Amino acid sequence: MEKTKQRIIDAAIILFTTKGYDGTSIRELSKKANVNVGHISYYFENKAGLHEHLLSSFFDQYVTILENVYKRMPAISAKECILECVEKTMKFHRENRQLARYVYREVTLDTMLVREIMSTYLTKEKYYYKAILEKGHKAKEFIVPSVLLAVMQLKSMISTPFLQSQYLAEVWHIMPYETSAIDQYEKVIVQWLEQSIFTKPKLDRIAL
Amino acid sequence: MEKTKQRIIDAAIILFTTKGYDGTSIRELSKKANVNVGHISYYFENKAGLHEHLLSSFFDQYVTILENVYKRMPAISAKECILECVEKTMKFHRENRQLARYVYREVTLDTMLVREIMSTYLTKEKYYYKAILEKGHKAKEFIVPSVLLAVMQLKSMISTPFLQSQYLAEVWHIMPYETSAIDQYEKVIVQWLEQSIFTKPKLDRIAL
Repeated sequence: MEKTKQRIIDAAIILFTTKGYDGTSIRELSKKANVNVGHISYYFENKAGLHEHLLSSFFDQYVTILENVYKRMPAISAKECILECVEKTMKFHRENRQLARYVYREVTLDTMLVREIMSTYLTKEKYYYKAILEKGHKAKEFIVPSVLLAVMQLKSMISTPFLQSQYLAEVWHIMPYETSAIDQYEKVIVQWLEQSIFTKPKLDRIAL
Repeated sequence: MEKTKQRIIDAAIILFTTKGYDGTSIRELSKKANVNVGHISYYFENKAGLHEHLLSSFFDQYVTILENVYKRMPAISAKECILECVEKTMKFHRENRQLARYVYREVTLDTMLVREIMSTYLTKEKYYYKAILEKGHKAKEFIVPSVLLAVMQLKSMISTPFLQSQYLAEVWHIMPYETSAIDQYEKVIVQWLEQSIFTKPKLDRIAL
C-alpha cells in the first residue's frame, strides 16, 4: 500500500515540475501514478494536500539531517560540523533533485503554505546554522562577521545546482547533475568556506 | 501614447506577480491598465509578447548597466568596477523590485524564452563579470580562485532581497525593501567582497 503512496508522490513530482501545479489535474496524477483518484484522496485528501506533503516532507528530512549533524557537537568541531552539513545536505538534494528544484522555486512564492514552511522548517535551519557558526566563532575556530551573510551564502551555494540548473548548463556549460560536475561544485563550496568563513580576516562584526 | 504602453507594462507586472502568468487574462490586463485589448495587441501582440518584453527589457537594462561600468576600465580599477556594478545593479533592482522578483523566478524555469534570455543577456553578464574579475586577478588587485564561485555568489547576493524577500522577512525579520535594511544589506555584500574576493588567500586556482 505504501508503494501506491510513493507512486502518487513520484507522479506529482514529475507533473508539478513539468506542467506546473495549476496545470496538473488529479485525473492526470492518477493516470500517471496508475492509481485510482480515490487513492489520492485517501493519502493526501486533494491536490493541495499532495503539494503540501511534497514541501513539508522535503524540508522535514532536510532539517533532520542538519539536526543530527548539529547534535554531534562538541564531539566534532564547528568546522567539521559545517562541512558535514554541506556534504550530507548536498547528497540529500542530489538524491531528490527534481523535488529539490520544485521545492526551491515554490518557496520563492508568497503563500500561506510557504509562510508555514518558513516559520517551522527554515526557522530551524537558521537556528542550527546560527548555533554552529556562533560556536565556531566563540571557539575562535573561525570568524563570522555576519551570520546572515554566511547562512545566505551557504544556502544559495547548496540550492544553486537545482534552482539554477539551466543557467549553469546554458551559460557555464556545467551539467549540475553529472557526478563530476557535482564533485567539482562541492570542491568550490568547500573552497569558499575555507576562503570566506574558515579564514580569519580583520573585519568588524556587523549587525546582520 | 507611450503612457499607454507603460500602463500596460505596470499592470502586467502587478497581475503576473500576484495571479501568475497563466492566471492572468488579456481582459484583466486591459481592465487593470485601463486600455483597450487592441492597445495590448498593438504594442505586444499578445500575453506571451508582453511577458517576453518584461524579461528582455529588464535584462537589457541590467546588462547595459554592467557594460557601461565595464567600459570605464582601465580608468577605474577592477575593484572599483565591481563595487560600482554592485551599487548600480542593486539600485536598478530596487527601482524595479516587483519586476525583479518576477523575472528572477521566471528564469528558474526551463523554457525556450528563458534559454534565449540566457544565451543573450546572461552570457553577456558572465562575460563582463569574468572580464572584470580576471583583470583584477591579473593586475594582482585580488585573487579569484574560482570565477564561477565569485559570479554565482555575487549574482545570488544581488538577487536575494528580491527572490528571497519573504524568507528574509519571515525567518530573519529583515524587510528587504526598507532603505535601512537595503543599506545594511549592501554593507554585507561589500564586506563579503572584502572578505572573499578582495583578500588574497593562499588558494590554488581550480577549474570552475
